[in-house]
Amino acid sequence: MADEIRDVLRAQVIDGVFTLAAHDAGATPLMTDKSDAKDALDDLRVELFDLHELMFANEERSLLLVLQGTDGSGKNGTIKHVVSAMNPAGVSVASFTEPTAEERDHHFLWRVERQLPRPGHLAVFDRSHYEDILVPMATGATTEDELDQRIEDINEFEERLSSDGTTIVKCLLHLSYDEQRQRFLRRLDRPDKRWKFNVSDLDTRARWDDYQRAYGRVVAETNTEAAPWYIIPADHKWYRNWAIATLLAETWRDWNLAYPQIDLDLAELRSRLESPG
Amino acid sequence: MADEIRDVLRAQVIDGVFTLAAHDAGATPLMTDKSDAKDALDDLRVELFDLHELMFANEERSLLLVLQGTDGSGKNGTIKHVVSAMNPAGVSVASFTEPTAEERDHHFLWRVERQLPRPGHLAVFDRSHYEDILVPMATGATTEDELDQRIEDINEFEERLSSDGTTIVKCLLHLSYDEQRQRFLRRLDRPDKRWKFNVSDLDTRARWDDYQRAYGRVVAETNTEAAPWYIIPADHKWYRNWAIATLLAETWRDWNLAYPQIDLDLAELRSRLESPG
Repeated sequence: MADEIRDVLRAQVIDGVFTLAAHDAGATPLMTDKSDAKDALDDLRVELFDLHELMFANEERSLLLVLQGTDGSGKNGTIKHVVSAMNPAGVSVASFTEPTAEERDHHFLWRVERQLPRPGHLAVFDRSHYEDILVPMATGATTEDELDQRIEDINEFEERLSSDGTTIVKCLLHLSYDEQRQRFLRRLDRPDKRWKFNVSDLDTRARWDDYQRAYGRVVAETNTEAAPWYIIPADHKWYRNWAIATLLAETWRDWNLAYPQIDLDLAELRSRLESPG
Repeated sequence: MADEIRDVLRAQVIDGVFTLAAHDAGATPLMTDKSDAKDALDDLRVELFDLHELMFANEERSLLLVLQGTDGSGKNGTIKHVVSAMNPAGVSVASFTEPTAEERDHHFLWRVERQLPRPGHLAVFDRSHYEDILVPMATGATTEDELDQRIEDINEFEERLSSDGTTIVKCLLHLSYDEQRQRFLRRLDRPDKRWKFNVSDLDTRARWDDYQRAYGRVVAETNTEAAPWYIIPADHKWYRNWAIATLLAETWRDWNLAYPQIDLDLAELRSRLESPG
């Protein structure tokens, strides 16, 4: 039996502690060759289309893919290279940036609820409700009590989603400080990429250690059975794409879905169709 | 200068009349060879990705692709083969079926408003607000006054969208009665396609002429400068895909968008990035 990427990449929280810095962002577990990974991704894209269609046809369960990670870690690249394999009719992508005034007037999960997948659909969160604990945690703009409350809210929320038929796949795209530098420099170098550069990303980069610690704590406290975290080494784009595609495929394969058998009188329908119009 | 598909496929309303039955659903204007069409579509998909990204980067204008057509005419196939070329992060697909109880309590455009594209985004309507006139028109379940009012509402609505920065591309996928029979029979034959078959589609098929007349009248009355109709011969799937991809590409090319030039002090940013962390 082949190793499952889910087992290999699942966050290991030991005695309530998870240390992101102990993980190698350049690692490539279960797949070492770039060209093999690209070939495998081509096959996975075909399989993902079919698995997603099976979910869509059954209209019962849904899947929520949460993509978290620092600027430049490849959330959008994952959407472009992996999520694009699925039929857009059954996919929605929601991007969570600074809350609007209206959103701030509500509970922090209000805007998230509105973007959940309908039965049969895949929803992708490019950032998510985790921003609402990561940012205040890293910048110190909150109290411990408020953080604890939000963590509890998230765990209850995800538990409810899960028991309601939504499988949550939470991916932390783990990028190194050096690779982020290279990616930012490339954005500055290329006139067709420069629009993606945000000067405030450098302020976030200046708090690198604070954010790494915040990620570690968030993973430790929200790595539940209902919605575990996967730590995706993201310095190699080809690895990130292959790993997330494989995670999705493993998740869907486990459901063992078949096309719904609808009860039709085939002979009668054929004869209705074949009679002259 | 090459012929533009927009000119060729644009609905021609003469003296206020448009007769759908006068159009050949098996026609292939400007592209006669299936294999050429597939090669061209591969190139168009690459170009559409870039054109869509330019729209996304600029965050000003948006595009609404309306797909109308009878059951089996290929609305979903268009989404699968054409819309899938674009980055899912900037695409939303809304499917309009029977209105829910909540939707019926509102004006018929209420549910449509909620699915409009944000600036920079592509929204695709798999069926649309046109169902709310086509169905009552074809089945006689309404009054002339109410139909006139809805047509007026739609024309005003689309005019407002257009002047607000949303370009509307309305495609009527024109399928023949015989080709629909073949497609329905194929759905019945294939166990992995049977779930798409809906017995009520045969009731709609039984009203074929009523629907063709309704489409003709709807096109005649809503073929505005702000939002013209394109009649897509849809008996050949390869033609339909190529034609709609070409329509989108022609539309976006006309915008002549460039990547936004943001004012950055590149030297200062590079030196901030290159200093040790």
